[in-house]
Amino acid sequence: MGAVIAGFPDRAVITEVGPRDGLQSEPAFVSTSEKIRLIQALLDAGLRRFEITSFVSPKAVPQMRDAAEVLAAFRDRKDAHLTALVPNMRGAEAAIEAGVDAMVLFASASESHNLKNVNRSRAGSLAGFSEIARLAEGTGIRLQGAIATAFGCPFEGDVDVGAVVDQARAYVDLGMDHITLGDTTGMATPALVIERVQELKPILADAGLALHFHNTRGVGLACVYAGLSQGITHYESSIGGLGGCPFVPRATGNIATEDLAYLLVESGVETGTDLDRLIEAAQLAERILDRELPGQVMKAGHRLRTAPMDSVRTANG
Amino acid sequence: MGAVIAGFPDRAVITEVGPRDGLQSEPAFVSTSEKIRLIQALLDAGLRRFEITSFVSPKAVPQMRDAAEVLAAFRDRKDAHLTALVPNMRGAEAAIEAGVDAMVLFASASESHNLKNVNRSRAGSLAGFSEIARLAEGTGIRLQGAIATAFGCPFEGDVDVGAVVDQARAYVDLGMDHITLGDTTGMATPALVIERVQELKPILADAGLALHFHNTRGVGLACVYAGLSQGITHYESSIGGLGGCPFVPRATGNIATEDLAYLLVESGVETGTDLDRLIEAAQLAERILDRELPGQVMKAGHRLRTAPMDSVRTANG
Repeated sequence: MGAVIAGFPDRAVITEVGPRDGLQSEPAFVSTSEKIRLIQALLDAGLRRFEITSFVSPKAVPQMRDAAEVLAAFRDRKDAHLTALVPNMRGAEAAIEAGVDAMVLFASASESHNLKNVNRSRAGSLAGFSEIARLAEGTGIRLQGAIATAFGCPFEGDVDVGAVVDQARAYVDLGMDHITLGDTTGMATPALVIERVQELKPILADAGLALHFHNTRGVGLACVYAGLSQGITHYESSIGGLGGCPFVPRATGNIATEDLAYLLVESGVETGTDLDRLIEAAQLAERILDRELPGQVMKAGHRLRTAPMDSVRTANG
Repeated sequence: MGAVIAGFPDRAVITEVGPRDGLQSEPAFVSTSEKIRLIQALLDAGLRRFEITSFVSPKAVPQMRDAAEVLAAFRDRKDAHLTALVPNMRGAEAAIEAGVDAMVLFASASESHNLKNVNRSRAGSLAGFSEIARLAEGTGIRLQGAIATAFGCPFEGDVDVGAVVDQARAYVDLGMDHITLGDTTGMATPALVIERVQELKPILADAGLALHFHNTRGVGLACVYAGLSQGITHYESSIGGLGGCPFVPRATGNIATEDLAYLLVESGVETGTDLDRLIEAAQLAERILDRELPGQVMKAGHRLRTAPMDSVRTANG
């Protein structure tokens, strides 16, 4: 049923960021065993790429203080690709010691957000990445780069595409093999996605490009559609839509993994995931956090889940 | 900023259905003056097409018992196009008497949903439309047709595109000049939108085609994107996302007007609406109903609403 959609790839890869990006802002500590249980459920649902934790100061982000333990529980899963966010040399040493598959280094495309986020200039961040790149040499551990505020900055407003392109070029020069555009505060729009992807393609060389959208203004999956129309095959999301927007109290953050998988599969794009199991994992996340999450498919179920006719009262169309 | 998106029209028209489709399922009566205040706010925000009420039995839908009064408050707005849902001859007589610009007649593309919704076969519904068409002759009041369950039926599952095409052809033959595909329970996907639009275009003659999506499974605005890629210029939505899905307790219903307007404007598609005023109208709807509505832009504000740097605590990317 349905048309093949022009430009869409046959397959796409989802990187699950819930265990890191999603849980990170939770004020109450989620126990290590609950984290492991959730990640196991996500593996069982067919996901194979995870931003699984971050090696940050346990004082700054207590939620991630069990980074090494969480990683250890899954290090033997050779079919899974496990990355961790690394803010500095100390984090890189810990991540290498713990045995990640790749370290994710991050800086913002806007100066003020980078200053606010990591208390460093963008140039300072890039200099730090060079040090980490030297440390990683010969370990077999890959480097990935995230570009925060790639579609706009909550302090500066619009971000010029040239700043994003320059940063991606610097990432490629540092040997990063995977670059993510982060929609940190939900400012991405389909038109910006298309513009940025088209400008970036010529300079990526062999590096993969991933898109990470927030649904803060409701257009997260429309931005995925725009990415798909440009042939982009990597997307990041969090189960249930875990993780809010730090800038807006009632607003949602990351797009939900199960909603993303639903859009992909129903658009003829294979993901290797099992929607019913993703829904179960999202429901598990709700139970762990004891609150409603913003994901939609987890509430409504698959579109072909039919109801008996006497189960509902309808009201004219 | 951003690219022009292939196939998108320069302008699109939003039909606001909140006053009818949104409020209809509210159990507590919203006073006539509150309804009028909300519609006035929507007019002030630049909206000009409204499904403003329905002429149904006040016993069946007590919320709509003030249909004639609500309509009377805006009948003199010659710049506004005011339609009402009409289920039968009695409703048509009342709608004509009240002075609507157009009557919206509706039947489902699936037999079981039509039976459940209006207790009539689809053929019976079409026969009733013929009677109403004769009644409307010479009054200057136009007929519009809505096709419910056009993307899937909650009882039957998939709905064949042929059933939708046949129904649209019958609507055109009855003289309807505007046909809406209704995503009654949120089963539309971008691929289905593209398929259905492409099949319908050859038979529409001069009738306009509008798309009405629900965000029940999170892909409502991705479906709008698909419609835009096919050049479709008419969309229906409700302010704040008013109106739930009768089939799923926690699920959302209609896409939110302000989120739709945001997607359109940020995609280079003019709508004639003022986003800040739409947000105010959505907030008014929340106050009237005294509960949170699912719209996203109303919570986060416009993407270029910047924050002072000391107003937030960020946490690594």
